[in-house]
Amino acid sequence: MIKYPNGTPNKKVTHISKAESKARKSLSSANRGMDLESDINLSNEYYLEKDLCVITKRPTPINVVKVDYTKGAIITNAYFEKQSTTDYNGVYKGRYIDFEAKSTKIKTSFPLHNITSHQIKHLERVLAHQGIAFFIIEFAARNEVYLLDAAYVIEFYKHGERQSIPYDVIKEKGHLVPRGFSPRLDYLPIVDKIYCKN
Amino acid sequence: MIKYPNGTPNKKVTHISKAESKARKSLSSANRGMDLESDINLSNEYYLEKDLCVITKRPTPINVVKVDYTKGAIITNAYFEKQSTTDYNGVYKGRYIDFEAKSTKIKTSFPLHNITSHQIKHLERVLAHQGIAFFIIEFAARNEVYLLDAAYVIEFYKHGERQSIPYDVIKEKGHLVPRGFSPRLDYLPIVDKIYCKN
Repeated sequence: MIKYPNGTPNKKVTHISKAESKARKSLSSANRGMDLESDINLSNEYYLEKDLCVITKRPTPINVVKVDYTKGAIITNAYFEKQSTTDYNGVYKGRYIDFEAKSTKIKTSFPLHNITSHQIKHLERVLAHQGIAFFIIEFAARNEVYLLDAAYVIEFYKHGERQSIPYDVIKEKGHLVPRGFSPRLDYLPIVDKIYCKN
Repeated sequence: MIKYPNGTPNKKVTHISKAESKARKSLSSANRGMDLESDINLSNEYYLEKDLCVITKRPTPINVVKVDYTKGAIITNAYFEKQSTTDYNGVYKGRYIDFEAKSTKIKTSFPLHNITSHQIKHLERVLAHQGIAFFIIEFAARNEVYLLDAAYVIEFYKHGERQSIPYDVIKEKGHLVPRGFSPRLDYLPIVDKIYCKN
């Protein structure tokens, strides 16, 4: 065996970013099935590390009923509240970005019944104030993810005959988000292309 | 006594908005002492109702350890996490807005020890991506509230000799936020004036 100067075999050390390290860890347990939310969270961490944008997940709103201060502020009674805005927001090139992520197992349409009227109202307001607003929609059975401008979702929510958007409409009006290793869902170039080119 | 057509004295009925109604309720119990956060929340509700901007409070991040599903998803064990971003963000004229609100009882300076390095990093990133970032600072003993650009706070946090910003600096570099009935703290015209005039 060859002796190396420092007494240990030469190892190729490459820098692994925090987001990449997490992504690798997740890949190794891929059978558990990564969900859409963690894919987006990892992508946002990647964008943050690469200094491309600042997009964060809003914490889940929780109504705290009782806190036990004898044990150092342990919450002993609380309940989840409905999100009245959306999951994600942030800044890209000075512009305000706001979006909601949803996954469906249905192949032929995206159901709107688990989008609240508060969320629709919020997205309408964001658009009225010239913010960028969209949905990231996963068709899990197809392994396809689309970015769809919020205006289409609002339109179908308010005036659609069915409480769903057909897959074909999303395929036509939306933008397929490329899946990759890191970032998992590279949606930022799409945002740049459709909202930030003058 | 004059008899009115409907048998009751004529009352002047005026429309009271939701935010105003809340503000009035709070005024009637003014001795309990309104805090800065509720003043800002009421102002944001007012701005939302008047359709001037969309600025919301991020929910407090809570780490949920245990949920009792037998009683319909009651959280029985959880704890508060440190906010790694800021309290508020949103959109005004398409621009991304991000700010933190802090109150101090000290008259001569604004202490920085309860601002985390994560928050400073977050605000640096927001500024780098051309977002609007500031602090709303209340000097409770003076009954004065200032809007101060985040760049000053970052500068004092990183390079200041003391872990505080002198009151005189905030008075000079910041902008006094007018207190009123509704909105309680009218900070939006200041944002408009210093960040949105081209």
